[in-house]
Amino acid sequence: MSAKNAMALIERLGEFKTGLYQKDFLHTWKQSDADCRAVLLIAETLEEMWRANIDARVFRGGLAVSNFRDKSTRTRFSFASAASLLGLSLLDFDESKSQVAHGETVRETANMISFLTEVIGIRDDMYIHEGHEYMAETSRAVDAGFKEGVLPQRPAVINLQCDQDHPTQSLTDLLHLQKTFGSLDALRGKKIAMTWGYSPSYGKPLSVAQGIITLMTRFGMNVVLAHPEGYDVIPELEQLAGKHAAASGGSFAKVHSMEEAFRDADIVYPKSWAPYQVMERRTALLRAKESKQLEALEKECLAHNAQFKNWECTEALMKLTNGGQALYMHPLPADITDLNCAAGEVAKSVFERYRVPTYKEAEHKLYVIAAMIMLTRFEHPARLLKQLVDKASPRRMV
Amino acid sequence: MSAKNAMALIERLGEFKTGLYQKDFLHTWKQSDADCRAVLLIAETLEEMWRANIDARVFRGGLAVSNFRDKSTRTRFSFASAASLLGLSLLDFDESKSQVAHGETVRETANMISFLTEVIGIRDDMYIHEGHEYMAETSRAVDAGFKEGVLPQRPAVINLQCDQDHPTQSLTDLLHLQKTFGSLDALRGKKIAMTWGYSPSYGKPLSVAQGIITLMTRFGMNVVLAHPEGYDVIPELEQLAGKHAAASGGSFAKVHSMEEAFRDADIVYPKSWAPYQVMERRTALLRAKESKQLEALEKECLAHNAQFKNWECTEALMKLTNGGQALYMHPLPADITDLNCAAGEVAKSVFERYRVPTYKEAEHKLYVIAAMIMLTRFEHPARLLKQLVDKASPRRMV
Amino acid sequence: MSAKNAMALIERLGEFKTGLYQKDFLHTWKQSDADCRAVLLIAETLEEMWRANIDARVFRGGLAVSNFRDKSTRTRFSFASAASLLGLSLLDFDESKSQVAHGETVRETANMISFLTEVIGIRDDMYIHEGHEYMAETSRAVDAGFKEGVLPQRPAVINLQCDQDHPTQSLTDLLHLQKTFGSLDALRGKKIAMTWGYSPSYGKPLSVAQGIITLMTRFGMNVVLAHPEGYDVIPELEQLAGKHAAASGGSFAKVHSMEEAFRDADIVYPKSWAPYQVMERRTALLRAKESKQLEALEKECLAHNAQFKNWECTEALMKLTNGGQALYMHPLPADITDLNCAAGEVAKSVFERYRVPTYKEAEHKLYVIAAMIMLTRFEHPARLLKQLVDKASPRRMV
Repeated sequence: MSAKNAMALIERLGEFKTGLYQKDFLHTWKQSDADCRAVLLIAETLEEMWRANIDARVFRGGLAVSNFRDKSTRTRFSFASAASLLGLSLLDFDESKSQVAHGETVRETANMISFLTEVIGIRDDMYIHEGHEYMAETSRAVDAGFKEGVLPQRPAVINLQCDQDHPTQSLTDLLHLQKTFGSLDALRGKKIAMTWGYSPSYGKPLSVAQGIITLMTRFGMNVVLAHPEGYDVIPELEQLAGKHAAASGGSFAKVHSMEEAFRDADIVYPKSWAPYQVMERRTALLRAKESKQLEALEKECLAHNAQFKNWECTEALMKLTNGGQALYMHPLPADITDLNCAAGEVAKSVFERYRVPTYKEAEHKLYVIAAMIMLTRFEHPARLLKQLVDKASPRRMV
Repeated sequence: MSAKNAMALIERLGEFKTGLYQKDFLHTWKQSDADCRAVLLIAETLEEMWRANIDARVFRGGLAVSNFRDKSTRTRFSFASAASLLGLSLLDFDESKSQVAHGETVRETANMISFLTEVIGIRDDMYIHEGHEYMAETSRAVDAGFKEGVLPQRPAVINLQCDQDHPTQSLTDLLHLQKTFGSLDALRGKKIAMTWGYSPSYGKPLSVAQGIITLMTRFGMNVVLAHPEGYDVIPELEQLAGKHAAASGGSFAKVHSMEEAFRDADIVYPKSWAPYQVMERRTALLRAKESKQLEALEKECLAHNAQFKNWECTEALMKLTNGGQALYMHPLPADITDLNCAAGEVAKSVFERYRVPTYKEAEHKLYVIAAMIMLTRFEHPARLLKQLVDKASPRRMV
Repeated sequence: MSAKNAMALIERLGEFKTGLYQKDFLHTWKQSDADCRAVLLIAETLEEMWRANIDARVFRGGLAVSNFRDKSTRTRFSFASAASLLGLSLLDFDESKSQVAHGETVRETANMISFLTEVIGIRDDMYIHEGHEYMAETSRAVDAGFKEGVLPQRPAVINLQCDQDHPTQSLTDLLHLQKTFGSLDALRGKKIAMTWGYSPSYGKPLSVAQGIITLMTRFGMNVVLAHPEGYDVIPELEQLAGKHAAASGGSFAKVHSMEEAFRDADIVYPKSWAPYQVMERRTALLRAKESKQLEALEKECLAHNAQFKNWECTEALMKLTNGGQALYMHPLPADITDLNCAAGEVAKSVFERYRVPTYKEAEHKLYVIAAMIMLTRFEHPARLLKQLVDKASPRRMV
């Protein structure tokens, strides 16, 4: 029935014309609601097509370039999988093996890696105020290169996590919520608690929390951000969340208590991050290669974190949620008490209860990325998908 | 004539239904004789198809994931080549660039890299008692993931060398023997000397020797294991070799003299390895990161090894073999006296005489791996191969 | 109109039979004029096909192996792009992850990585007198392997930059000149100044300069090599340039003044390199791993270089060229004064004026490499290209 499901989803897309064609996907808040919904619909379509064994290769050659400036398992495999699904050859750009080490400019590199390139995926989340800027600079460079005739096509730049947003994650989360609650409309009025969680490590990016509060407020949800005093996210993005909530009929609030956030929540999302101000100090030290001061900062932060070990998603806290049945979410890997650390973001029994749904959610990411590629690289993605489903060429022999 | 050869091989497979479908290939001794024979037949078929310029891509997208936890040339290229041959996109999983470094569990990682994955190839041969365990844990994880609905398909885990077995090598060796002696039946009663050889390095895995004594004893061969006192392999696997020999009508014996092993041998396989007990000490020190004690152990072992420099496959020793004409085998790279070391496993003149057959043998490995993928991922591999040969779509223009 | 353009180019190739079939591309000076012209024609054809959205995959599987023994962005992406364009799976051979670290011979490695391999691209430009030798040894190894029946096909070895030549660059440069001046014939009598340029780094390869003086002299150009005293290139290659000039009706001269070289030049190519004699000392020290002496040598060379900061391609120098309008060329990345260094090879305003043509030129390289693959791997490349253009199978959906 998957092929039928795929066709039904395509019909819902109709003659959809994307605003993303020939553009990038850097922030969800820069995209229209229609485009965000289209990401979900196309992701679902591609997922059904895979299960129905339908070849989805819209490309026959050409490159998908990834540039991971920080460690990654899930996103790395999601990007590579999306490339394989659509027929692109993956090339992982390792700056240490390139002339970037010889002083090459971003403008030049961006063009040099793009002659046959349809998409460039970038993770750059270590340096606050810089990750997004690097992506934006790459975007301007390929835009100029295309206009100047240097590039035969304009590759889309896709944000695989920056210092501000993590759109492939937040849209994956949204797809998970839609599937769990039945529809996007069903999310209206639901309470989601995006909370800090204790972690034995430090320096985790803020972009997951920022991505959630800015995206979920657009769909009429009641979003509560909770963290200990001092663990602030970027202020402008909190303000944006408020604005989104006002526009959608949802709400946005900030509290400093996990209990308060969890009370009557339909969804809880406990996840560690480093305070915004700490990330600024860390960025300066990383840039200056002050390894001693970095160690001192880490020590200081870990000691500070340790005051908040009670920010753990326990069974007791889960009982406070709506019917004691809130959906637990995490982008993985989580710090799980008594599983991979002594004290972490979530109690083992809570995590284990939600492990399978959390793993299932992770699968969506590759289709979300593939959907972003379809939307940025084709003017009428729904037409192409229809052709592929009509043809139903098997993606593997059976 | 290669297409005709391919078809003849496929006919010998007949309506073969594999016991490997939806399973892994971790040890040869866990697989039936029929499945081992099927690996060889399918490997040969694919090799003929390549030479007949017939497209063998049963997949159109999807991933083949490799995870090399130790250095590799041959197996790395064999796995990548098998993936390309069958139409899969290769993704090499580099743990240092992943969240594994952040404490991610094997269970989680195994699922996260498998959403579009048909096969996971793992080399993990550095740690005795652990290499196989890692593969088994990965296997259990994807098994559970598939049953829980996390994974849309269950990727096969293929052992690219562990602490116990090296099945892609031993089956490659068996295919080489079959081709050299005419058939598997012709191997019955042939004497193969699996012997230790001196090497200027230390710490080489035991899995080649263990793979040979456990596999060749199943085909009625007379297998002699020879090594200096103290260079024992895993005792349970020696016992298994004995059991196999008893069942097949072959024999298994252990001696401590290279001369005795070589006498009247039809095949000689001189290859260095570290004593089992040393590997246990080494594993403990590697885990504890005791670099000083590791250096001391290396020194001690190299000094001990040096007492056995006479364990070299010389022309004089070769004269002792059946008609002086035994087949020399090695998985490569060999330590060749006066070629890449001052004293090694084999004399230069012996190696040079067998260099071309040894190189030719190495080619089989990629087809053995491809055959394992066919058998684990398709219920009726022979039917698919027949369709491909019937269609005879060219794999390259000419 | 691109498909029509492609067909016109193919017609110019006619029934061209390459002398490169089953051979390597290591030096331009070993190839006939006809083969060099065929590289350009096929490169142009493939470029038109890409723009006309015509699938150019002559392969359906099989490997393209790259081995970068020095950093690279452009050439790395060009090789990967050429592989994707033609339907090959890329495999980057990382020696540090291979058994090469265990003393494997070049002969053996070359065979082990080639069972399904159509092309091996190598960059080895760090060691004078050694880079080419490594490629030649690889070439002899695969030649022998093919003749001995080890390899089912003979992969072509393509020089991606050695100590002597950089043919993918010099032919890319030639294609750029042909496009800029209208035809190869139009280059006759044009003056090209291949000059040294000041760089704040040291140890850059000589192969670009050597590649230019030996190739451009074959097309009737007046080639002037200019560098400070002591910055000699390999003497035999200077002599070869002279011989080529004599044969083609062009000229070759050496001067020690940038002004003299630039005067009335139609093309200027200012580019840093290390003196030949310094590279010899450096190679010896690198081999001996004498890190202290290497540092001392670097210091000495940088100090020496600093005497020649006036070797910068400034606006004043450009005014000396033919009508003040000479074409500026560089293989990139350039050391650009006030952009990526305080003092470099070229003034910022000069570079910026030629930035777009220089970037556009860089695109040609991937097609030049693809053309080399077509010419070394197929006896009648023009026939295949005609078939592909006739079929006009789309390389991506639209």
